Amino acid sequence: MPADLNRLSAVELAAQLQTRALSAEQVTRACLARIAQRDGEIHAWAHIDPDYALAQARSLDAGPIVGPLHGVPLGVKDIFDTADLPTSYGSPIYEGNRPAQDAAAVALCRAAGAVVLGKTVTTEFASYQRPATRNPWHTAYTPGGSSSGSAASVADAMTPLALGTQTAGSIIRPAAYCGIVGFKPSFGAVPRAGCKALADSLDTLGGFGRSIDDVALLASVLMREPALVTARRDTAPRVGMYRSLHWRHAAPETREAFAMAAERLKAAGVEVVETPMPDAHCALMQLQADIMAYESVGALAFERWRHADRLSPALAAILDGGARITREQHMANLAQAAEIRGRVERLFGDCDVLLTPSATGEAPFADQGTGDPLFCRLWTLLGVPCIHLPFAKGPQGLPVGLQAIGRIGHDIGLMAAARWIHPLLQK
Amino acid sequence: MPADLNRLSAVELAAQLQTRALSAEQVTRACLARIAQRDGEIHAWAHIDPDYALAQARSLDAGPIVGPLHGVPLGVKDIFDTADLPTSYGSPIYEGNRPAQDAAAVALCRAAGAVVLGKTVTTEFASYQRPATRNPWHTAYTPGGSSSGSAASVADAMTPLALGTQTAGSIIRPAAYCGIVGFKPSFGAVPRAGCKALADSLDTLGGFGRSIDDVALLASVLMREPALVTARRDTAPRVGMYRSLHWRHAAPETREAFAMAAERLKAAGVEVVETPMPDAHCALMQLQADIMAYESVGALAFERWRHADRLSPALAAILDGGARITREQHMANLAQAAEIRGRVERLFGDCDVLLTPSATGEAPFADQGTGDPLFCRLWTLLGVPCIHLPFAKGPQGLPVGLQAIGRIGHDIGLMAAARWIHPLLQK
Repeated sequence: MPADLNRLSAVELAAQLQTRALSAEQVTRACLARIAQRDGEIHAWAHIDPDYALAQARSLDAGPIVGPLHGVPLGVKDIFDTADLPTSYGSPIYEGNRPAQDAAAVALCRAAGAVVLGKTVTTEFASYQRPATRNPWHTAYTPGGSSSGSAASVADAMTPLALGTQTAGSIIRPAAYCGIVGFKPSFGAVPRAGCKALADSLDTLGGFGRSIDDVALLASVLMREPALVTARRDTAPRVGMYRSLHWRHAAPETREAFAMAAERLKAAGVEVVETPMPDAHCALMQLQADIMAYESVGALAFERWRHADRLSPALAAILDGGARITREQHMANLAQAAEIRGRVERLFGDCDVLLTPSATGEAPFADQGTGDPLFCRLWTLLGVPCIHLPFAKGPQGLPVGLQAIGRIGHDIGLMAAARWIHPLLQK
Repeated sequence: MPADLNRLSAVELAAQLQTRALSAEQVTRACLARIAQRDGEIHAWAHIDPDYALAQARSLDAGPIVGPLHGVPLGVKDIFDTADLPTSYGSPIYEGNRPAQDAAAVALCRAAGAVVLGKTVTTEFASYQRPATRNPWHTAYTPGGSSSGSAASVADAMTPLALGTQTAGSIIRPAAYCGIVGFKPSFGAVPRAGCKALADSLDTLGGFGRSIDDVALLASVLMREPALVTARRDTAPRVGMYRSLHWRHAAPETREAFAMAAERLKAAGVEVVETPMPDAHCALMQLQADIMAYESVGALAFERWRHADRLSPALAAILDGGARITREQHMANLAQAAEIRGRVERLFGDCDVLLTPSATGEAPFADQGTGDPLFCRLWTLLGVPCIHLPFAKGPQGLPVGLQAIGRIGHDIGLMAAARWIHPLLQK
C-alpha cells in the first residue's frame, strides 16, 4: 500500500481509482487515519462517521466506476444538508439535526462517486462567530471562516477536496489563510438547494483543493462542466493588477506578494497592467454588507423568531442591524449593485483576469475571530468567479497569496488563466 | 358566535382579532370545521393536525397581540418546510418527512401571529404532475397547479390566506382557475430559505386571498413592507392591455374578459392603450422553460441520484431534457433573459400597469392535468410582480380574470393600481 495516500492530489487519486490501482477503501482509510491523528488539535470536523465513510468506499469498490470522483474523499461544510450525517449549520439550535436529503451539491458529488468523509466545521450559519477550528500551519491562528473546517482539513491533508460557500469572503479568505486553492464560481453556477441560506443575492457554492487541477475536477462536477478539467490557454493571459480601494488595509506581506506577482509575471513575459479603480467601488463594500444583513434577516427568520436566545450575540446584532434597513433601501441597494455589475466589463478592459489581494495579510490569531472579508466582498457582490492562488509566506511563516478574478460566467477562462499564472507565481 | 367566520376576509378577521372581539380559537375552529366538511371532496390539504392548529390559536389567545396576522389562519403549500407538520413536497420520497425548521416565509407569518392550519397539496416538487385536489367551483375541474391546495382551500373558504410559489405559473394560474386573488411578488422579494427549490433563477414566493386587501396583508408580512397594506393611488392608473404573443391560445372567454376589461376601464375614465408586443418576446416562453429545466436538474440532483425510481415519469422526462442542455447554452439563455429584462421599462412605456391573460381560459378537466402556464412564463422570467384579478365567468360557469403586471420592485405601485382597477372590472 502506497504511503501517505492522504497527501496525493485528487486528480492523482482519481486516476488510480478509475483503474482500480487504488481502492476507495484504501484512500478513505488513509484520510480517516490522518483525521484520527490530527483532528484533536485542528478541530476541522463537526461530524465524522468512519464506518459510514468506509461503507460508501466499499460499496464503490464493489460496483462499477460511477463518475470522475469515484472513490475520492470529500469534506462537506456543515452548512450543506446531508441525509446520512448530522447537519448543525454551526449552531446549537440544530444539534443532532438529520435532514431527509442531501444538498444538491453533495448529491452531484456523490453521483460522481465521491466518498463523503464527514461534515466540516462552519461558523454559525456561515456567519462570523469564531469556531474551534485552528490553522494547520500553526494552531495559534485562525483558518479563516466561514468554511473553516473545509479549508483546514484540505490544508492538513485530511481530505483532498472539500465543499465551501461564500457570501462575503468565506471561500477565498480561508483558502488564503490555509495556503490552498479555493474556488468561488460565478454566482448561480452551482445549485444551492439544501444549502442553508444566508443571503439569497450573494450565497455562492464552491470548494477547496491543494491545486488548481484538484479544484477544477471538483468544480467540473458541481457545475456539470467537464471543460473545466482540461481548460488551458495557448498564449499568456493579459493580467490586470487590481490594488483595490482597501489597499491601505493590506499588510506588508500582502503588498509584497502583490509586487512580487507583478514582477514574476513580467519576468515570464506575461503582459501586466495596473487596473484603475472605479470610484463607484468605494460604495461596494458597504453595499455588500447591507445587502447581506438585510437578506440574512429573511433567511434566518425562523431562528430569529423561535430561537433568538440561541443565536450568538454577534449574529443577533448583525440581524438587528439588518432589520433596520428598509425594503426601499434594499431595493435601491440591489439596483446600485446591478448597475455596477453591468459595468464590470469596463473594469477588465482588455485584461483576461485580474489579480488582487484575497485577505489583508496572514491569518490573525484564532482568538481574534476568523479575519476580515474586506477584499472579497466586492467580488462576491459582483458575482464574478474567483480563485485563490497561494504562493508566498508572511512574517509568521503563514501562507499568503492573491486571488485571480474572471468575468461572470467565464469560469473556464478563469481556470485556464489561473493554470498559466500559478506556476509562474510559485517560482 | 358569528356565523360563517371562515368566510370573513383576512382583513376583517385580523381587525376583530386585534381587538379580541374574536378569539383565534373561534376562527381556527370555523376553518377546521369547513375543512372537515369539505375536504373529502376537494382534497386541498396534504397534512392537517387540528389539535396543533388549536394549540397555536389558544397560545395566541392567551398571550399579547404579536403582529398583524394575530390569529389569522394560514394554509402552507407543502413545498415549504415546517418544523411541526410533515413536509412531503408532493412526492412519495418524502412521506412523513419532518424538517427541523420552518421555512423563512412560514416563520415570518408565524412571528406576525398567523395560525398554521396545515399543509396544502402541491404537485410533485411544484412541477406538473396532477394532484388529487379539485376545483371548488366544480370538482370535475382542476384547481390548477402547482399551488393546487392553497388556491382551492382559499377559494372554498377553508382558510382566508395561503402561501404559494411560482416558477412558471403556479400562483397566477391556480388563482385564475379558482377565482381568487393570487399575488406573485417581484423576484427576490420574499426569502426562499426552507422552500424546496425547483429553479434558482425563477422560484418566487407569494400567496392567495379572496381580495386584494387580504393578499396585501399577507404580502406585507412576507415582504416586511407595511406600505402594501395601505397602498392606494390618487388618480387613475394608465393601463396597457398586453394581448401576448400566445393570444392564439386564448379561449373565447379569455378574449371576452380582455375586451370587457378594456371597455369597463375606459367607461370608468381610465386611460387604456394596447401595448405592442416586442418581437423578442417570441423567445421568452421557450427560454423560461429551458432555464427551468436546466436548473431543476441541479435543484433535484439528490432525488434524481438517489430516488430516480420514485419520480413521476413526466418529471423524470423533464429532468432528462434539462440534462441535455449544456452549461454554455444555459449561460446564453440567462444572458438573453437578462437582456430582455433590461428592456422591460420600454414595454411599459408610460403605462403604470399592464393587463394580460392569466391562463388560456377556464380550468381544464382535472384528469387532463393542472393547465398550461403559457401566459405566466414570460412574467416569472422577467421577475416582475403579478396579481391575478378575478372578475368574469366562462361557458362552464368557472372563473376567468386577468393578471395585472407591475415593474420589477414596484410591488407597492402594482398593489395600488390593482386596488383602483379591480372594482371597475367587477362592475
